Amino acid sequence: MVNNYHIQIQFDGTEYHGWQSQRPEYRTVESEINRALRIIAKKRILIASSSRTDAGVHARGLNASFHLPVDIEPASLQRALNSLLPADIRVVYCRVAPRSFNARFGARSKTYEYRIFIGPVHSPFAQRYAVHIPYPLDIRAMKRALKYFKGEKDFSSFTSREAKENRVREITRIRMKVRRQEIVVTVKGRSFLRYMVRNIVGTIIDVGRGKIGTADIPDIFAARDRRRAGVTAPAKGLCLKEVDY
Amino acid sequence: MVNNYHIQIQFDGTEYHGWQSQRPEYRTVESEINRALRIIAKKRILIASSSRTDAGVHARGLNASFHLPVDIEPASLQRALNSLLPADIRVVYCRVAPRSFNARFGARSKTYEYRIFIGPVHSPFAQRYAVHIPYPLDIRAMKRALKYFKGEKDFSSFTSREAKENRVREITRIRMKVRRQEIVVTVKGRSFLRYMVRNIVGTIIDVGRGKIGTADIPDIFAARDRRRAGVTAPAKGLCLKEVDY
Repeated sequence: MVNNYHIQIQFDGTEYHGWQSQRPEYRTVESEINRALRIIAKKRILIASSSRTDAGVHARGLNASFHLPVDIEPASLQRALNSLLPADIRVVYCRVAPRSFNARFGARSKTYEYRIFIGPVHSPFAQRYAVHIPYPLDIRAMKRALKYFKGEKDFSSFTSREAKENRVREITRIRMKVRRQEIVVTVKGRSFLRYMVRNIVGTIIDVGRGKIGTADIPDIFAARDRRRAGVTAPAKGLCLKEVDY
Repeated sequence: MVNNYHIQIQFDGTEYHGWQSQRPEYRTVESEINRALRIIAKKRILIASSSRTDAGVHARGLNASFHLPVDIEPASLQRALNSLLPADIRVVYCRVAPRSFNARFGARSKTYEYRIFIGPVHSPFAQRYAVHIPYPLDIRAMKRALKYFKGEKDFSSFTSREAKENRVREITRIRMKVRRQEIVVTVKGRSFLRYMVRNIVGTIIDVGRGKIGTADIPDIFAARDRRRAGVTAPAKGLCLKEVDY
């Protein structure tokens, strides 16, 4: 009997070369899950995943699915996986899904969070999960800038220059929470281009620092040129928060 | 000119053999700060510290003081130290203190926090900072048990058996915050014996699991025997929160 399992995974991405790597010698989150599934199934299992996160990016709700030729209760599979996985990767949810469910193609929307630590000295407890910007930031300008990213747009200026696919994407929600020592930017959309969230955040930080004017953002979109936008914000601040199906 | 500097330090203790180690080949928080001060002062500097935390214990407000034969503004010294220290140790406060100030002997009280993660699956983001107890816990019994630890008592049953000093200590505050996935135990007192907080928390967890009855606690105190109390809770859940002077 073959079941289609659907799991949700949390991981601290600090020690991993992302979800999947081009180079097999790199340690990735997928390779760790593959290794655990191979022990359980005694064969190599193909995993569909909601996201291919970059090296250093974290996840609170990455979704994956796979067909397993082993009849095992979801709770037992979850326990078995967690006992085989390192402590910085945890399976937090497991169910038997309908045969047709695919964690990659079924995803309706994804929500990312980006953490910016703004206290004068970075926190040893946040340094793995937030970028440190110790310079004064114009929060109002940043909030104004956010609005330009909402909606369906050509995000060519906000992805790696090599990308050849269609670069129109829709951001359905983008907002910023400002706490005493931290800014959290939340971005939701159906799908994202490579580095898109990090490039948007990098641009918003540049707006906050006065390097880019809010009014320049429509021009940056229109230019469809990666060099016009801000720098790519570091991977460690980014976390895949959830995926809707 | 020699100034007496007073600093506050935060550190993620995961990678360190505590504040100070018997074995010089071990990496400790003090050895990292010593190394940085030696670069700044061009000689070995003696550091007084509020606490000698054990291997794996964290700090949000460890206090230290030292006389430095270099005339440097506190803000510049803080920046210099942070540029020389690893990212998991940060100097978050620095001032020139009166000549008589000593971070070790001047401490009036210390507050520790212990984090217990109670969700079914440990969080990859909390696993460095909280112990995982996935078993059902009797929260009410734990709260009742806490009260027995308050006040001035002989804590012989709650410290390492080797300790030969006077074992009477006073806990001025002890409380428990219960959140959805986490319990935080806060303990405040003038000073603590070795492993004392971890042994108290281990005992409270044993009460929560029904291994020790609340009513047994006075007997455990009276026995003055380490073997009567619960196990020592793991170091990683403990954090020195603040020190009052």
